[in-house]
Amino acid sequence: MRNVVGARCVSCGTRAEAVPGLTVCPKCGGIMDIEYDYDYIRSHLTKEDLAQRNERSMWRYLEFLPVEKVGKPRLRVGASPLYQADRLAKALGLGEGKLYIKDDGQNPTASLKDRASAMAVVKAGEAGMTEIACSSTGNAASSLAGNAAVAGLTAYIFVPARAPKGKVAQLRMFGAHVVLVDGSYEDTFRISAEAIDHFGWYNRNAAINPYLMEGKKTVSLEIAEQLGFKMTDYVAVSVGDGCTIAGVWKGFKDLYEAGFIDRLPRLISVQASGCCPINTAGAKRSFDWTPQEENTIADSIAVGVPRNPVKALKAISESDALTVNVSDEEIYDAMKLLGRYAGVFAEPAGAAATAGIRKAVAEGLIEEGASITTIVTGNGLKDVANAIKAAGEPVKIKPDMEELMNIMDRL
Amino acid sequence: MRNVVGARCVSCGTRAEAVPGLTVCPKCGGIMDIEYDYDYIRSHLTKEDLAQRNERSMWRYLEFLPVEKVGKPRLRVGASPLYQADRLAKALGLGEGKLYIKDDGQNPTASLKDRASAMAVVKAGEAGMTEIACSSTGNAASSLAGNAAVAGLTAYIFVPARAPKGKVAQLRMFGAHVVLVDGSYEDTFRISAEAIDHFGWYNRNAAINPYLMEGKKTVSLEIAEQLGFKMTDYVAVSVGDGCTIAGVWKGFKDLYEAGFIDRLPRLISVQASGCCPINTAGAKRSFDWTPQEENTIADSIAVGVPRNPVKALKAISESDALTVNVSDEEIYDAMKLLGRYAGVFAEPAGAAATAGIRKAVAEGLIEEGASITTIVTGNGLKDVANAIKAAGEPVKIKPDMEELMNIMDRL
Repeated sequence: MRNVVGARCVSCGTRAEAVPGLTVCPKCGGIMDIEYDYDYIRSHLTKEDLAQRNERSMWRYLEFLPVEKVGKPRLRVGASPLYQADRLAKALGLGEGKLYIKDDGQNPTASLKDRASAMAVVKAGEAGMTEIACSSTGNAASSLAGNAAVAGLTAYIFVPARAPKGKVAQLRMFGAHVVLVDGSYEDTFRISAEAIDHFGWYNRNAAINPYLMEGKKTVSLEIAEQLGFKMTDYVAVSVGDGCTIAGVWKGFKDLYEAGFIDRLPRLISVQASGCCPINTAGAKRSFDWTPQEENTIADSIAVGVPRNPVKALKAISESDALTVNVSDEEIYDAMKLLGRYAGVFAEPAGAAATAGIRKAVAEGLIEEGASITTIVTGNGLKDVANAIKAAGEPVKIKPDMEELMNIMDRL
Repeated sequence: MRNVVGARCVSCGTRAEAVPGLTVCPKCGGIMDIEYDYDYIRSHLTKEDLAQRNERSMWRYLEFLPVEKVGKPRLRVGASPLYQADRLAKALGLGEGKLYIKDDGQNPTASLKDRASAMAVVKAGEAGMTEIACSSTGNAASSLAGNAAVAGLTAYIFVPARAPKGKVAQLRMFGAHVVLVDGSYEDTFRISAEAIDHFGWYNRNAAINPYLMEGKKTVSLEIAEQLGFKMTDYVAVSVGDGCTIAGVWKGFKDLYEAGFIDRLPRLISVQASGCCPINTAGAKRSFDWTPQEENTIADSIAVGVPRNPVKALKAISESDALTVNVSDEEIYDAMKLLGRYAGVFAEPAGAAATAGIRKAVAEGLIEEGASITTIVTGNGLKDVANAIKAAGEPVKIKPDMEELMNIMDRL
């Protein structure tokens, strides 16, 4: 990998070689970051080269990724659509051409996490491992299960028992060994870490394995390319563990360093009011965070003890991010707005970023004329129960014209 | 539309102009078919032109479609992946490189029906209509709701009350006016037809509106292009109303007539044993079909009174199709095989085609060395209840290492 310089601990600065099985800092246990040779990237890839490329997936950007090559079979991860959403923009109080939706619910297992899991499967292969494990609020799990299945790896998955049925169904269907943990995400993470140590599985926990963020960052590479490398002023993303916002930020920074974009967007970090440890610290640009309860319907971002606070808080601070917390009601409203005005069905956590934009606009935090990209991180089909709660049950009639007419009068 | 010659009734041969609001034959009430000027297509589009094209959606193939141009905003429909699935091939008794999966569950509303609904929205726009309606077993409905929402059209949707929760949730979230009909698909279709007549909505019922099949056929255009225009020997598709198999066949025929492929595949028409009126007639190459009960878990193809038997039976007869009926158990098994060996999560009807391949191979109906494409028509997240039934519930433990160890011994 001539594009990769090595790895460096974000806490103590210790450097390490970017070996396939890399996990945490050998010195302080901190989280590692993959570093690139931007001159190398610059001299081996141009925007024009990219435009000519046929590969339509996250692997389109190989020069920006810590892999030599990618084998098959694999799922088609990435290449999700970016929509200019004028009708939704209007509903949120933004102008025409000022809002873009990156619909990452249109990934093979229906969430952004496919990007990280696809990377994990490739790196596990490089490390010669055939068993791979993670703990997850649900999406990382189902994406790992799907991406591992096609590659013929065995997946061991730990999810909190509260995980929505759709995600659990995916896990089972992909043939993963699934353990539902009767406890919080923290409990789940802990027991998975013990088990991974004990059994020696490849570790797909994004806060431990630095390569996963490199997979996640491809969402930013795509957004930039889809915007013709003219970035919106803001990019909004929902935040749980902290790995996704960190990955999003890493993508933009890499593009900036390699000269593909000429300015960095400000991030909008959105958490649920019922569980916002990162934003609570981030709002003060502090790195001193406190655990919180996991009290929100947005299960994917209900993380009371974030596993990647350092990188997330760095992303917030470096990007001078807005931090916005939204209630469950505000999330439900954003789900409905995304559906009605943009035809995008998001799971609660996937709609949280949009709820955050709405709130930030209403509170005057966004300057007039600013442009924003909102990332929808997961498909609403993963959590149908909450969708029905948000939108209500439909009316039921007998197959009778008179009954229908009565209802039509009411519509 | 210089590529379109006009429309012709498949029953009595009556010709009509291909106006945007075209429905059934003015003479006999039969189903119309859109006819093309293949010389025109041939002289305006080559395989090389296509390879250069940046559009990654069903609208990539404009020369093959009955539209002049396509406006925005719209969802990114089509451009779904085609996977070479060697591990699944082996599990089904096929050789390496002999099985391809077209995963159309990766459409914006997670089913192949997006292709038809996107077309309906464009044609409704051409006809100057702002209200659009359909009856559906679920997927046509949710796709219409999503595609109409982004375009700002009002959608009226009729679904049988048995429709899976995921599909109903989508409808509600996309802001459609939804009427659950307490009856069969036939009851639902009938009352929607009355209502459409009464209110003058644009009709998105695929058996009535000939343009919808033209949208559906884009799945075949994509399969062919993704195979480098070297068709597999067979293409397997699940069959309910009959419109999808008819659309699939139309796509291949159009490609053949325009010189893009040099041979036509044989279709494998797969229905559920509990509801197989088309296959019952099709197996005898007869057009004389009998209504049946709707007795299968594969809701999308549980159509006892198919609305498009003529075109479906023509497709079966013209392609010298295999007709295979599969039990619910066989569908569940196919869902598991798709998940475990290919990382593809299909709804029951979406997995039925694969179940049919498995059965056809086991019964010796497929000659040694034959290649097959299986179309997964919808995502398993739409019907989580059946997925859990197929794959079983996961084990639950307390966050305790000892409990985990006991379980691991069993795995």
